[in-house]
Amino acid sequence: MAEKKLIQGVKGAREFYPAEMALRNYIYDKARQASELYGFLEWDGPFLETIDLYAAKSGDELVKEQAFVFADRGGDLITLRPELTPTLARMVAQKQNELSYPLRWWSFGPFWRYERPQRGRSREFFQWNVDMVGVNSPEADAELIAVAATFLRLSGLGPDKTSILVNNRKLMDQQFSDLGIEPEKRLAISNAVDRRTKMEPDKWDAYVLEIGLTAQQLSGLKAVLGNYDLWKSSEEMVRLMAALVSLGVSEYVKFDPNIMRGLLYYTGTVFEAFDTSGSVKRAIFGGGRYDNLLKEVGGDPLSGVGFAMGDVVVGLILREAGLVAAEDPAPAKVLVTIFNSETYPAAAASSALLRKAGINTLLSPEATKLQKQFKFADKAKVRFVVVQGPDEIAANVASVKDLQNATQVQVPLADLARHIAQGLDPIL
Amino acid sequence: MAEKKLIQGVKGAREFYPAEMALRNYIYDKARQASELYGFLEWDGPFLETIDLYAAKSGDELVKEQAFVFADRGGDLITLRPELTPTLARMVAQKQNELSYPLRWWSFGPFWRYERPQRGRSREFFQWNVDMVGVNSPEADAELIAVAATFLRLSGLGPDKTSILVNNRKLMDQQFSDLGIEPEKRLAISNAVDRRTKMEPDKWDAYVLEIGLTAQQLSGLKAVLGNYDLWKSSEEMVRLMAALVSLGVSEYVKFDPNIMRGLLYYTGTVFEAFDTSGSVKRAIFGGGRYDNLLKEVGGDPLSGVGFAMGDVVVGLILREAGLVAAEDPAPAKVLVTIFNSETYPAAAASSALLRKAGINTLLSPEATKLQKQFKFADKAKVRFVVVQGPDEIAANVASVKDLQNATQVQVPLADLARHIAQGLDPIL
Repeated sequence: MAEKKLIQGVKGAREFYPAEMALRNYIYDKARQASELYGFLEWDGPFLETIDLYAAKSGDELVKEQAFVFADRGGDLITLRPELTPTLARMVAQKQNELSYPLRWWSFGPFWRYERPQRGRSREFFQWNVDMVGVNSPEADAELIAVAATFLRLSGLGPDKTSILVNNRKLMDQQFSDLGIEPEKRLAISNAVDRRTKMEPDKWDAYVLEIGLTAQQLSGLKAVLGNYDLWKSSEEMVRLMAALVSLGVSEYVKFDPNIMRGLLYYTGTVFEAFDTSGSVKRAIFGGGRYDNLLKEVGGDPLSGVGFAMGDVVVGLILREAGLVAAEDPAPAKVLVTIFNSETYPAAAASSALLRKAGINTLLSPEATKLQKQFKFADKAKVRFVVVQGPDEIAANVASVKDLQNATQVQVPLADLARHIAQGLDPIL
Repeated sequence: MAEKKLIQGVKGAREFYPAEMALRNYIYDKARQASELYGFLEWDGPFLETIDLYAAKSGDELVKEQAFVFADRGGDLITLRPELTPTLARMVAQKQNELSYPLRWWSFGPFWRYERPQRGRSREFFQWNVDMVGVNSPEADAELIAVAATFLRLSGLGPDKTSILVNNRKLMDQQFSDLGIEPEKRLAISNAVDRRTKMEPDKWDAYVLEIGLTAQQLSGLKAVLGNYDLWKSSEEMVRLMAALVSLGVSEYVKFDPNIMRGLLYYTGTVFEAFDTSGSVKRAIFGGGRYDNLLKEVGGDPLSGVGFAMGDVVVGLILREAGLVAAEDPAPAKVLVTIFNSETYPAAAASSALLRKAGINTLLSPEATKLQKQFKFADKAKVRFVVVQGPDEIAANVASVKDLQNATQVQVPLADLARHIAQGLDPIL
């Protein structure tokens, strides 16, 4: 390697060589399949938004602490989108009276947050967003959870490996109220519950007492957080759980009173998914029911339910579970070689014939030594190599070498596409 | 509509409602199909790069005049990528000794340029990039042109509607040399040729004389630009044209001595495609052979050939040609209604059964009036509506209304998926 200094990329930015791209596409494809099975339409917002859009959202530390904000050439403050929900609200509000409800929309695209790069986190990331807007029912909530569960199933992540944990903000609020915890302390308590698994038990107790709970309230709170039957007292949760059974995804779902979700705007059902078998501890996806989505951007209030999944955590899990290969995918199943500089027209014509039949085909771009072309085929994991020397050309045939079975046959040109297509697909 | 003030989007940014998203996906799908038929692998770079990466590229007005540049929280100058080639160079250089050549890579993603928004131009755009790196032959150039032509064919844009115009920088340089045009004037002359169709003939003549050509050189230049047989004097062009015939795409291709390409770095074959039948005058895509791609970022020199196509111009052409609908696509072919609040479990179970069979299915999220649910189905362009009232549930059947043929039948639940799948696909 030369001693020259290479220009470096931006820290925390993502580089998708073909192997990484295949992983991103695997996630995108399964997200598409799951979304479309439930009748959601794909959409996308701008990747640039004004800072006003995020400032409108209450309790948002995202823009202040984590967003990439800059002045454009006209002097306006522009943000690289850190999340999609404000854009959803803005675009729905803009056509509020033309759209038909319930609106079922999904999206998969890039987002940026200025975070410290670490395992499961990067500054550029892709996120799958799914939302249903304009209807408020536990059955609608169940549908969103079913889309998410279907993604896990389609990706090969079974209920033995992953769980979706659900809770309800109203149910929890009722518990807080029953314990006499004042409304102004509830956000701090929610945040404390979110952090509980990351803290020593006694330190957590001290932390909660510091927020201002009495010893009795603390012990009552701990009892609530350990009560996995609590959902039975919530009509919404009972309907949600029944709907999940009807939708055939209940094997993925567990009630968990410890699921709070950091964001202020959730108002009912909340859920998060976790890998229960591997080494990745961060949530795979999370979401819930939100109200007043459009009010903050100037539209008329509409209730919605949605979730978001980043590509980084689920990518680590899929790799760890061996569900997506870490190597480059094969670019094609066949390479057409060039025997010598005179035979290019025949080789090119054969490649055209194969492509016309819908077969992805590599054609050597110059007449190098055949051995070198075979080596390339091997490295590219191509299965078939086509050779047409002057004899084959004169006889209107091609030699086809099957690198997988180490066999070689001569095939009339008229049968070449069929021969290779059959070799690709053993079901004749 | 409420009198409230809606928060606005960024000027020139793109909003993809489902209909616009369907157009973007149409382009992405055809780009994928064309790229993969020729054995290219998908990749992607970061959307953020350091300004140094673009500063390294000679003759680049892109960063100075058009790029979005900003300081990140660490103070480094960051750019929203205005083009992909510098990133390609950087990422190839980074793994130069691990990659196997020729490298065939394609990509489809967002780019940003601070341009005045106008028809066929926006500040955010998507671009398809295709490159072959590490081989230098007219046959490799032909392969790239074939990928581009295959995209046009797959998109429904035939050679009656679109043309790919090719030229060769070395051939033109030879002509300039034969006319005695000094090397230091050739860039200005190339740019003048690029502008010729947009100027009055006499104004163009004056402009060229101003650059410093003699009247004799001007008339010689005009003869060259009118000589459509000029390619026959270039061995590279002769081989390129022959290869395009062998690859089966020559019907799309014409030699045109007026094709120059603005960018300095092209060194051989250059090409651009145009709509020859509609109202859109801007190039659909453009590309060519470049040398020393990696040298500028600190790698060892490698030759390459590539092209790029933005989504905006081709999107206008596809819409104008009626090849992609302007309305929302249908989100599913079937809606399962909820007869009343008691029948949700049966409806949800039917939707699960259809989805398990791979059929995209909408399920009403609440038991509103049936008429309202039918109206939703109609607006969503759903073909089948499933109704299960108490009688149907008791008899283990479902009523299936075919909105297209205005027929209704009762189907045993065990046959529901097959009935609808057959209705979706008339080939039984």
